[in-house]
Amino acid sequence: MERKGSNQSHEEFPMNGQGEYSYAQNSNHQRLTADVTKHIIREAMLEMLDLETVLHNSSNVIRIADLGCSVGPNTFFTVQNFIDTVNLKSQSQGHGLDSLEFQVYFNDHVGNDFNTLFKSLPEDKQYYAAAVPGSFHGRLFPESSIHVFNSTYALHWLSRVPREIVDKNSPAYNKGKIFYIDEDKEVTKAYSAQFKRDFESFLNSRALEIVPGGIMSLTFLCVPPDTKNAFQVLSNIMGDVLVEMANKDLISHELVDSFNIPIYTPASKEVIELIQKNGKFEIEKSEFLYRLIDTKRLPDAQKTCMSRRAWSEGLFKKHFEEGIVDEFFIQYEKQLAEQLTTLFPVSDQNYKDLGGLFVMKRTLV
Amino acid sequence: MERKGSNQSHEEFPMNGQGEYSYAQNSNHQRLTADVTKHIIREAMLEMLDLETVLHNSSNVIRIADLGCSVGPNTFFTVQNFIDTVNLKSQSQGHGLDSLEFQVYFNDHVGNDFNTLFKSLPEDKQYYAAAVPGSFHGRLFPESSIHVFNSTYALHWLSRVPREIVDKNSPAYNKGKIFYIDEDKEVTKAYSAQFKRDFESFLNSRALEIVPGGIMSLTFLCVPPDTKNAFQVLSNIMGDVLVEMANKDLISHELVDSFNIPIYTPASKEVIELIQKNGKFEIEKSEFLYRLIDTKRLPDAQKTCMSRRAWSEGLFKKHFEEGIVDEFFIQYEKQLAEQLTTLFPVSDQNYKDLGGLFVMKRTLV
Repeated sequence: MERKGSNQSHEEFPMNGQGEYSYAQNSNHQRLTADVTKHIIREAMLEMLDLETVLHNSSNVIRIADLGCSVGPNTFFTVQNFIDTVNLKSQSQGHGLDSLEFQVYFNDHVGNDFNTLFKSLPEDKQYYAAAVPGSFHGRLFPESSIHVFNSTYALHWLSRVPREIVDKNSPAYNKGKIFYIDEDKEVTKAYSAQFKRDFESFLNSRALEIVPGGIMSLTFLCVPPDTKNAFQVLSNIMGDVLVEMANKDLISHELVDSFNIPIYTPASKEVIELIQKNGKFEIEKSEFLYRLIDTKRLPDAQKTCMSRRAWSEGLFKKHFEEGIVDEFFIQYEKQLAEQLTTLFPVSDQNYKDLGGLFVMKRTLV
Repeated sequence: MERKGSNQSHEEFPMNGQGEYSYAQNSNHQRLTADVTKHIIREAMLEMLDLETVLHNSSNVIRIADLGCSVGPNTFFTVQNFIDTVNLKSQSQGHGLDSLEFQVYFNDHVGNDFNTLFKSLPEDKQYYAAAVPGSFHGRLFPESSIHVFNSTYALHWLSRVPREIVDKNSPAYNKGKIFYIDEDKEVTKAYSAQFKRDFESFLNSRALEIVPGGIMSLTFLCVPPDTKNAFQVLSNIMGDVLVEMANKDLISHELVDSFNIPIYTPASKEVIELIQKNGKFEIEKSEFLYRLIDTKRLPDAQKTCMSRRAWSEGLFKKHFEEGIVDEFFIQYEKQLAEQLTTLFPVSDQNYKDLGGLFVMKRTLV
């Protein structure tokens, strides 16, 4: 509710809505993750969820919210898995199959293309659909009104670029780069601090909105111990391409210096500590998601470029002239083609890091 | 929920979303009505609403749904009036001012421009906003989940053109016209029967979704006894213009014969009887809404044309070639300029009929 927590300071970074570079056309990675997490989430929920507790004093409505849903179709698969799981649990707890009704809230920024989302809702959906616009770093729902929260590949987005890294007088000023590198402690610290503030604000909002005993499942980019941070590497190549374009006077150095990607990929340890310190959710599962890679297949520069373009093009267009953005992605793909096999040699790494999954339960209060 | 009531047979007739002929730019009539109904609704609600009853067994969340909300801003004024009224009632029943939370559902067809609606949400809104896509002739919400329903200028829309009036073999075949005229009993009967089916289906759906003691306020076109049906007159002039265009070979007669406006303006008596027969709501207020008109001001053909274009252009574009629609409205405005003062002489009628308002309460079950 606006009077309780202002959303004014949250920036929006909508995914591409339609067309060749759309998120819907380029989110295989996300779909794949949903397939991987499906069984883990189902198993955890069957274990944790107690329908008697979460339906306490309310009717037979289970409310599910997917935060950062984009335009589909991944969100529909994810949501269906929760519904199937609750139905399974309901049967095992002796409820009839038809006794429960489901209401599903699809949340994303105000700038998300909800019209497209609505038009692609499954025809045979077994739930009442609703959309909720706004930043999940603030409040979105009334108190104690949601039974299951999910968020897939959204929580690594920060509510804003950390102030310090665009401040020329700060030791964290991120000149000539658009992301953090671990060697630059000040910049990394600023990113990490912003993530901490955002994640705490997220947890506090959800803790109020979820019913006691409710379940929350979060999947996002996050770095396992002793692992090369592929997202970071690929982001810094983007920065190198921009600097190169500035050197050729295609864009100004100042524009590059003031541009930064508002994403942070925390270490898994960082996430777990923040959840524990917050104290409102008990972690039941925390897993790293990997995908085995066919070692005969070389990394694909074009696919990598397309998939990064799907989530980042909006950011670039907001900051740089639109005409330059096409050229940027052409150059970026060239760089990827040159560097990918060296950076990620197939013999070295036969799995792909898909992020972290944290399934937790609201403590009973 | 789709498995309980299919929405497949409902047609969509979205309002114009943006631009010169947009609903937002041409809905003064609606805004005016909201101003007129504001006090009536407030008074009725203060009388009828018992917060102890409607919040029975639930938390402190009041859920309000506006059905057929279009893109704003009228829906925001309407909703705010309900919130202010509930807060007033809450104070008078001894609740604290901050004890209630509000969740507002904005409903309209899937084809409505919800993106625009979300972008124009009031910045200082004191509620959690959500959008719900789908036809209000079917189910939209879980059982017993809504405390206040509103619908302004939407319920006269039928879920479809009555089958009989486009069936060449039916006695109700509406050849050479696009709306009913009272003299044509068969066509009028077909329209009336469709309205009856739709309104019953509406009432049954809402009766399940509203909490016992919940309030529903409906405003829509509806004809007071012994009154000239201005909507009907203006619609039939549209039909005459189309026939004239067909006579000039600008469009085919067949296209005109197969086109009909899916709106019915019931007599107030008809509405009251249907609500009573349905038996799930007690009518607390039923009022006709009038506006006094400055008798020195002649009827304005241009304004009348613009305001009718705002809600009907989509219908025409769906059925006729887009190029012809501009020409149609030019001709329509000409006809209005010729006929309006004769049809509605200023001395004859110093008020404008704004429709009917019905405020009712879900019977306690």
